[in-house]
Parts: sequence; C-alpha cells; structure tokens
Amino acid sequence: MKEVVAGIDIGGTNTVIGILDRAGNTLGEETISTRDFPDALEYAQALCAKIRMLLGFLQEEVELKGVGIGAPNGNFYSGSIEQAPNLLWKGTVPLARWIEAEMQVPCVLTNDANAAALGEMLFGAARGMKHFVLITIGTGLGSGIVVDGKLIYGHDGFAGEIGHALVRPGGRICTCGRRGCLETYVSARGIRETLGEMLIESSQESQLATIPLRELTVKDIHQAADRGDQVAIRTLAETGNILGEKLADSVNYTSPEAFIITGGIAHAGELLFGPCRASLEHHLLNIYRGKVKLMASELIERNAGLMGAAALIWEELAKVNL
Amino acid sequence: MKEVVAGIDIGGTNTVIGILDRAGNTLGEETISTRDFPDALEYAQALCAKIRMLLGFLQEEVELKGVGIGAPNGNFYSGSIEQAPNLLWKGTVPLARWIEAEMQVPCVLTNDANAAALGEMLFGAARGMKHFVLITIGTGLGSGIVVDGKLIYGHDGFAGEIGHALVRPGGRICTCGRRGCLETYVSARGIRETLGEMLIESSQESQLATIPLRELTVKDIHQAADRGDQVAIRTLAETGNILGEKLADSVNYTSPEAFIITGGIAHAGELLFGPCRASLEHHLLNIYRGKVKLMASELIERNAGLMGAAALIWEELAKVNL
Repeated sequence: MKEVVAGIDIGGTNTVIGILDRAGNTLGEETISTRDFPDALEYAQALCAKIRMLLGFLQEEVELKGVGIGAPNGNFYSGSIEQAPNLLWKGTVPLARWIEAEMQVPCVLTNDANAAALGEMLFGAARGMKHFVLITIGTGLGSGIVVDGKLIYGHDGFAGEIGHALVRPGGRICTCGRRGCLETYVSARGIRETLGEMLIESSQESQLATIPLRELTVKDIHQAADRGDQVAIRTLAETGNILGEKLADSVNYTSPEAFIITGGIAHAGELLFGPCRASLEHHLLNIYRGKVKLMASELIERNAGLMGAAALIWEELAKVNL
Repeated sequence: MKEVVAGIDIGGTNTVIGILDRAGNTLGEETISTRDFPDALEYAQALCAKIRMLLGFLQEEVELKGVGIGAPNGNFYSGSIEQAPNLLWKGTVPLARWIEAEMQVPCVLTNDANAAALGEMLFGAARGMKHFVLITIGTGLGSGIVVDGKLIYGHDGFAGEIGHALVRPGGRICTCGRRGCLETYVSARGIRETLGEMLIESSQESQLATIPLRELTVKDIHQAADRGDQVAIRTLAETGNILGEKLADSVNYTSPEAFIITGGIAHAGELLFGPCRASLEHHLLNIYRGKVKLMASELIERNAGLMGAAALIWEELAKVNL
C-alpha cells in the first residue's frame, strides 16, 4: 500500500491541508478559513475531518503515516502553538497532541517559516544548500534558519525571529509592544506605512493616493510599481534597502550562503530585490562581501510551507525507524 | 604510552602553548609574544619548537596525537588565519597546514572565541548546555555560537561575528570601516571611549581623570569602580546596558539558554553584569523573557581558549577513528 502523509500549512487567514507522497507530490488539497474557528479544539477536529475526506477521495489505497504542521508561533519541542498574536486562540494550543490522539498517527508541528525553509531546502531554491535563511513576508516577517542542513530551534523551540530583531532602535511601534523591529518596516503593514509616508512627503502623483491606505494590499503596490508609479517604486526600493541592511547584520550570526525571500512581496521582483541586494552588499562586514546570495522562493506558487510540513513528518518517521 | 595534544591560544599580544591530556589537564605551558614574529612562517616554526620543548620537559613518555589552535579570524574549514586586523600578518596564513607538515600530526584551527566556547562547554560555565553564546571582550568583541551542542561555522567558516553586528546605526567608527558595531562600545577601546565621554560630561571627580586616556586599561576602570569611583561605575553600567540591548537582539537568531561573558572585563562582576542582565531582560521579545541567563566564564583564570583548542583536536581525532 502506498504510504502518504498529511501536511498542514496554518496561516492567520487560511489553512491549507494536503495529502502528499514521499516525493513531495500533492495528491489532494483543501483550504479552510482559520478565522471560522474561534474554538481551537473544533478547529483541530475540522482538520482531521478534512484529512479523512481527502484520503477518501484518492483513487488508490493509501496508508496515512503521519501529520506535519507549520503554524505561526509553532513550537517544535512542545508540538503547541504558543501565544500567537495573529491567531484567534490565546495561550497554548497543544495541536499536535490533539491530532495524534484523533488520527492515531505521529504528528509534528513547527513554526510556519521553518516549514517553508524545509520545503525550499528539499524542493525549491535552497536545494543543495547547507546554510541559508528563509524570510517570509506577509502579515509579519517570519524566518527559518538552517545551519549544516538542519533547522535551528534553540533551547526553547523559538529560534529564528528575525522579524523582531531591531533595525531602527526607537523606531515604529511593533505589535510585540517594542519599537523598531524589522517587521514594522518589512511586512504588509510596514510597506503600507512606508507608502503612506511617501505619499505625504512626495510631490509626485500616484494612483495609490486614491485608495484608502488600510485597504491597500502589497499586490496593489507592486502592480502600481510595475505600471511605473514612482511612489510605489520608491516604496519598494526603501523596503528593499532596510531589509538588506538587517539581512547584512544577520550574516554576523550564522553566515548563510543565501537568503530566500517568500510571501506575496516576492512577486515584486527586481524592484524590491535590486535595492535589497545592493543594500545587503553595502552593509556587509568585509569578510562576507561578495559571498551572500539573495533569491526569491522557487515554490511561491506551490506552497513551500505545505511541502515543508509534509517533509518534516517524513523526517521524523525516518528517525523513529532508525 | 600516554596520549596528549598541544593546544595553542593565539592573541594579538601573546600566544599560549600548552600540552594537555584527554581530561583537559595542562601538563606544561609556555607563552611567547605574538608581536615578536612579523614573519608568519617563523612564528609557526617557533610554535613547533615550543611544543617539542614542552614535550621534552615531561617526566613520562607521551605520544603527541595532534595540535588544536584558536586564533583571531581563524577559519575552521581552511585551517587558515584570514585578514586578521589585530595581527601583524596580512592576507591568508595557512597555519594548520604548516604545523601539520612540520609536526607530522593532524592540526585543526578555529576562531579564538569558538575555541573558548568549546572550553566553556566541556569544562566551564556551559557544561551540560546545548544552546549558548560565548562573548569574549578584549581588544575587540568575539563570539562563539553553539547550537545543539555544536559550534556554528556557517557556509564560509566565519559565523559568529556579533562584535560587528550593529547596535547604533551611524554611531562610532569601527576598525572594520563601518559605523555603530557592538565592539565600538563593548571592547577595551569602546569602554575607554565611553569613560572619556563620561569624564567630559560629568561634574563628578574621578581618579581616572589623572591618567592619560590611551594608557587606561579595563582593569584600571573596574578597580576604580570597586573603590567607588562614580564615573567608573557609570561607565561599566552604560557598557552593560548597551551589551544587554544587543544580546537581547541576538536571541532572535539562535535562542540560546545563556550568554557566557569572558575576557578581563568579566572581573568587573555585578557592576557590569547587573545592568547588563536588566537591559537584556528589558529588551527581549516577550516569548524569550525570563528564560535567558547571563553568566561569567568559569575558566577566566584557566584559559578557556587553550582548553577549547585542545578539546577541538581531540574531537577531530575521535571523528577520524569512527
């Protein structure tokens, strides 16, 4: 019988559930709204129901070997989602334990950016790399750090929070309560705020000035830039600048071969990547210059998080069988 | 026959050469002046001569199994010292290869802070820890980062340069040519500069005002502080503050259980550690609060770098024998 796993990619808005084989092929996939479930236990039951439904749809007989999950503030060690500011559930949600109990197969859970990093390492832009950092830019800025071919978890499971490293001490207020975190400049909200500042200061016309700032999406901004809107172009350049500056600082810790950027903003292409690459190189310590690559995700249309979550449980199953 | 290794701890001023057994006991030790050797090859020959001399002094018959070296800008992958700003030799010095050729035993080399981190992990304050960061404060600020019980080297061998991470963008000029690096504030030179600023701004009397600033040592400053000199006390507190701020930022990368501080400044005790601990805790992201320890080296009188360099070659020898 063919062996498969379920991968689950939890986002603040949507959750994607997939059935994947060992090679990373998706045999079936469903999306539910994360926000439809204010009760975490009901959400877990809904995930299990979707997994059973997807398995039932398959033409061939399969055996479910395990479940892998990528979630905001997911803790690999505890299998729980802990104090996630962008999810409805407060405190600690022991999601992996609940799903193990319900499905009677092993379940592992990690941070969503960690899952995406694993996906890129096995199937995407980081194939063959042993040292890299994945940066995912969405509502916030997440990061997954890989050293010697392994994800870093740290002593408590929470390593890799570059979004909350400071880039402007005393700068913009962050959802974490502090000031100047990278994600207050480089995230959907941060980019919108930079655009707002540019619109106020600029004497140039912009189509974006006609849209209420709160309704503006990252997509609106990079599409306007593609059409030649100068304010949008400068917003992306400034975002790239500040991201490059902090990535250069990050190199001092784990000295990665590359940064892989994912999230909707990666569609902005060279309008973001060009300034970011120049800023990264400019701010690097001399011994690192000319060595560090900046790349877009290769899985942006394929869901690196889902593929990584599935890869994570395959890895855990392999350890058990050693 | 008893098996021993040679450990070498290279500093900008002095080099310590020791013969150590497997348990980390030093059977013999010699110090030479690093600056006496403008020619790197002559320096390597002097090291080999000292190793032979120390072996000759031992009462019992021993077998030299290998040589381990900790050096500023030491690269584990290449076995070379590369572009070290605080040493006389320019460019790349293939020290490990030279010593292997001369002594006919394996030789490994790493960054001096990495060697000290290994020493603390095996014999000092980090015993039993799997995730910690060693910070060594001397002429500059070095760091060795341990994740899952292993030193991080990164893709090029240069991971762990926290001294060159930015703490004050646009701030003091660094020897690396950039501005605002941590070591421009937290190092012998940085502390002296902070003291100078305090002396200028302060209306308080200080015994230190009678000593030319360039001649002041870190020891002078912490000894004055111990005697109650208010300017010296405030200098140590400000140094602790800014170090704590950047250590909090560092937690976002590898989430260590502890920071271990070494170098002469560690003698300053709670006058430095108290403000540093408070600042670290204050600046941490909420998920890390109350979890990260700040500790002094336990090997400050025993040379963690030498013990770590010896431990490094024992580790490499064990790998070869697997």
